[in-house]
Amino acid sequence: MAHISLTEGIPGILGPMLFRPETANPLNELAEALLRGPNSLSPGERELIATYVSSQNDCFFCQIIHGAVAAHHLRGNEALVTETKRDPEKAAISEKLKALLAIAGKVQKGGKQVTSQDVERARQQGATDVEIHDTVLIAAAFCMYNRYVDGLATWAPQDPEMYRQQAARLAAEGYAGSLERLSANSAAQSV
Amino acid sequence: MAHISLTEGIPGILGPMLFRPETANPLNELAEALLRGPNSLSPGERELIATYVSSQNDCFFCQIIHGAVAAHHLRGNEALVTETKRDPEKAAISEKLKALLAIAGKVQKGGKQVTSQDVERARQQGATDVEIHDTVLIAAAFCMYNRYVDGLATWAPQDPEMYRQQAARLAAEGYAGSLERLSANSAAQSV
Repeated sequence: MAHISLTEGIPGILGPMLFRPETANPLNELAEALLRGPNSLSPGERELIATYVSSQNDCFFCQIIHGAVAAHHLRGNEALVTETKRDPEKAAISEKLKALLAIAGKVQKGGKQVTSQDVERARQQGATDVEIHDTVLIAAAFCMYNRYVDGLATWAPQDPEMYRQQAARLAAEGYAGSLERLSANSAAQSV
Repeated sequence: MAHISLTEGIPGILGPMLFRPETANPLNELAEALLRGPNSLSPGERELIATYVSSQNDCFFCQIIHGAVAAHHLRGNEALVTETKRDPEKAAISEKLKALLAIAGKVQKGGKQVTSQDVERARQQGATDVEIHDTVLIAAAFCMYNRYVDGLATWAPQDPEMYRQQAARLAAEGYAGSLERLSANSAAQSV
């Protein structure tokens, strides 16, 4: 049971977002800008970074939903998501993404863990300042989202199919309007 | 030197915010809602939570600037901020705030560290669901801001007076418009 009184049956972060729309809006706008805004990193690559960090933080809901969104963008390649979570260095991803994931892994432990060598490695693989910035902020942001989800002991469904369906909607419709869609849904269900 | 190319002389989080306004806006709106929005916790109490978490994450810039904002709201009581950072249980703060800081300290380590006992203790001291929610999210958010500031190796001034002055402006004008003020300032300086 969640630590505070949340609407039942609302999965993961959506429960506290529905509880507190004042903070849900900037949280969703941040996810939208980071994961779906114009960027030389593809949405699939950025979702992989989010998934990897969530996995390092052992946040079930975030790693499953963002893993499903990543797989959706990566032509359904769920095995690649699993490989990346297990060991990015051995996964079938670009050398640039490996270097960025190494930075993200350091940020997950603490900001000061990131060294000039980590950044230099990413640059040598062609990473730009914006890509390095966004990697650091995606990793930092998921250290927030993961703590928000687990710190309130929110409920997470276990059925992988539910996450695949939700991922397809998120990939199509984005994060920015997800609270409005949820509120409209809840209202429709209570009619 | 910062890990990416940031405008020189811009302190802490403001450097990467100026570099990437797309993400700066939701970051500032989140801080505004959490630390200054309508709430039964005072701005001083909320800034103390932010300061304590930043101190636990050893983020110099965030703990000094938010400590200065907290002190500003707490009638200039810088000693209380120092005491709270050192040991909230022994600080001259309310029992409710002690219980909320204990939750924040758990969130800093990881979301799953928060127990029902921690939450029950806060409730017994009169904490509401919204106060518990906001404490968890303030702590989670500062795990992001701290990692963002340190993960990019941003520059932080050492002069405490600079922080006091900036804190007075933040307390008066808020976080939401801080990027616009900074941009206007930079433009004026470059004329």
